[in-house]
Amino acid sequence: MQAHADFPEKIVCAIKSVVGTEAVALHEPTFKGNEWLYLKQCLDSTFVSSVGPFVDRFEADLARFTGAKHVVAVVNGTAALHIALELAGVVAGDEVILPAMSFVATANAVTYCRATPHFADSEPHSLGLDPTALREHLRSVTELRQGHCVNRHTGRVVRAMVPMHTFGHPVDIDGLLGIARDFGLAMIEDAAESLGSWTEGRHTGTVGLLGTLSFNGNKTITTGGGGAILTNNSALAVRAKHITTTAKVPHCWDFIHDEVGYNYRLPNLNAALGCAQLEQLPLFLARKRALYNRYSRAFDGIDGVRLQVEPPGCQSNYWLQTLLLDEAHASQRDAVLRATNEAGLATRPVWRLMHKLEMYRSAPRAALSKAESLESRIINIPSSASLGGEAQ
Amino acid sequence: MQAHADFPEKIVCAIKSVVGTEAVALHEPTFKGNEWLYLKQCLDSTFVSSVGPFVDRFEADLARFTGAKHVVAVVNGTAALHIALELAGVVAGDEVILPAMSFVATANAVTYCRATPHFADSEPHSLGLDPTALREHLRSVTELRQGHCVNRHTGRVVRAMVPMHTFGHPVDIDGLLGIARDFGLAMIEDAAESLGSWTEGRHTGTVGLLGTLSFNGNKTITTGGGGAILTNNSALAVRAKHITTTAKVPHCWDFIHDEVGYNYRLPNLNAALGCAQLEQLPLFLARKRALYNRYSRAFDGIDGVRLQVEPPGCQSNYWLQTLLLDEAHASQRDAVLRATNEAGLATRPVWRLMHKLEMYRSAPRAALSKAESLESRIINIPSSASLGGEAQ
Repeated sequence: MQAHADFPEKIVCAIKSVVGTEAVALHEPTFKGNEWLYLKQCLDSTFVSSVGPFVDRFEADLARFTGAKHVVAVVNGTAALHIALELAGVVAGDEVILPAMSFVATANAVTYCRATPHFADSEPHSLGLDPTALREHLRSVTELRQGHCVNRHTGRVVRAMVPMHTFGHPVDIDGLLGIARDFGLAMIEDAAESLGSWTEGRHTGTVGLLGTLSFNGNKTITTGGGGAILTNNSALAVRAKHITTTAKVPHCWDFIHDEVGYNYRLPNLNAALGCAQLEQLPLFLARKRALYNRYSRAFDGIDGVRLQVEPPGCQSNYWLQTLLLDEAHASQRDAVLRATNEAGLATRPVWRLMHKLEMYRSAPRAALSKAESLESRIINIPSSASLGGEAQ
Repeated sequence: MQAHADFPEKIVCAIKSVVGTEAVALHEPTFKGNEWLYLKQCLDSTFVSSVGPFVDRFEADLARFTGAKHVVAVVNGTAALHIALELAGVVAGDEVILPAMSFVATANAVTYCRATPHFADSEPHSLGLDPTALREHLRSVTELRQGHCVNRHTGRVVRAMVPMHTFGHPVDIDGLLGIARDFGLAMIEDAAESLGSWTEGRHTGTVGLLGTLSFNGNKTITTGGGGAILTNNSALAVRAKHITTTAKVPHCWDFIHDEVGYNYRLPNLNAALGCAQLEQLPLFLARKRALYNRYSRAFDGIDGVRLQVEPPGCQSNYWLQTLLLDEAHASQRDAVLRATNEAGLATRPVWRLMHKLEMYRSAPRAALSKAESLESRIINIPSSASLGGEAQ
């Protein structure tokens, strides 16, 4: 099949038919609820910092929404991943299975634990870890030694896996859970992008031992910067709160810290914004789904590209709307990125695959042919909730 | 000298004579400037997160105020210390000289670099590192090996020192600078507590290779949570910005990261609060000095206790007002803490010395007799800027 020269222009027209002709960002937040009121309450109370009622409320509200038994709010999604890995028992010298197709924070968090990422392939239906390929890979490169899954080539313990729910689409969590059990790996779900995404009634981030969320400015809801750790395990929740708040032992005045902790608290000011945003999450999700439907119609007649749809049995938050070019049009990816951005439509490719980054070139990895193909064909297009709203 | 049974009551009365009879916090912020306006500008612009005009402005305003050539705003003071240590060349296996009398973040930041804190003594005039004792200690335990200062007992390189300006009182920075030069140590100033403190015209944190600030809720100005790295070295400033923002290589759409970086950005929302607070810093400093003067008169006639005064040649921000009991009254410290807190006056002792915390018990250390004596005699009393204000 020959890719047509007017392909980028068709994409531009299809996007404009949905979002209009003005310049439009990839993803921007909306603050039309109680953001204002809650920030003012923070200032008036003077509780803007490390303790305050909005932190507790934000945690409780997130627990209610996701169904997680425990939620610990932290300063950002990277900090949440770092602590979740520590709590899952990842120690210096371990390996941790990650998708090569992920944001760099996932791999960096493993490095903070002095462990090594071990990259695995993704599959096109979820854009997340491919369970079939991962099982086959683990069978071929690992063996059980003294109860641990050990990489035969490196001699290191493969301690955990961190599936990520890419652009909000739930990964095949049951397939991966089976692998985690069979190979004795702890599972941490990186749900940074998937607040409001579900697999058969289970919120992303609540199926594994621990899950993590992000509330960066480009996410479905934002706290400015922020994140959270989800878990159904009470002991892990207590430890998560303790080590993210400098491991201080409660005392009416004494400063005693009983282990090396972190200053990973979410400030009350940011939690206040989060509480207001969370109230509007159902509205944002409805608008993002509406946006998907509008894009779906707009791209319906265009050959060579499809709009990523939520996997079967799953409900996606449609955080970032995603075009997938077919193989024949992969060579047009950069032309499409150029044409759209020049037309004022902010678009972007997926992250450079992790094993291609200088610092992770020598990390162990599986065959990554599907991730490499996806990398050459993915384009994210404007996705703000406001684009799916009343305007349609 | 016999400590009198009514000693705690005298302290309570003296504090009340200054702050009144209502319950009063140890330190709380005041938001009576443009906090409101700037937060609203953030929400209206939708730039609450990782980029935004308030981050740039806050950095520029801090540079102007402190005289530092470069300022990089980060998510908190602990993150600032972690990055400053990395930039100063601290690597796994090194030792770093710290005061045993400091907040735990200083030691933890060293641990994040996989280095070991090496604790040194403090002196009563500044409450910071004692240069005379430190020089003597380094002479006795280190030797020069291949251009590096090496601890003869552990064989590890002593790479850096991190003096801290305790409660805002400038440490003897010139004395320490001489030691840093003589022993080849990088100097990072922990100025978390000392925004607005100067030594002969030089702002704390601007004399060493790098300095760090904190804007936690209990500090002289607050951003909710926040910190900053100060340096006069352009190359270090560029690297500080790079590795605190995930080490992303600038590109119009591509996601390429060229080293293991951190998500240590200060959100624009928090920077907005910082800009408004910084405008009021001269007022806060004047009020805190006025509060010192009021306390000074109140404690003038009380035997067994003195109010900590700024060291000669220095200007302190008087972040936390500090009582120092004399040796004969040291046994009364907890009685004073109890009496004051029971009277609704929030007071606290100094931090438990670092070498007494479980995780740092085996860290190398100098003789710490002065720090131990200070630890048994220090009490911080209510210190909010608002207490020194119009009310007097």
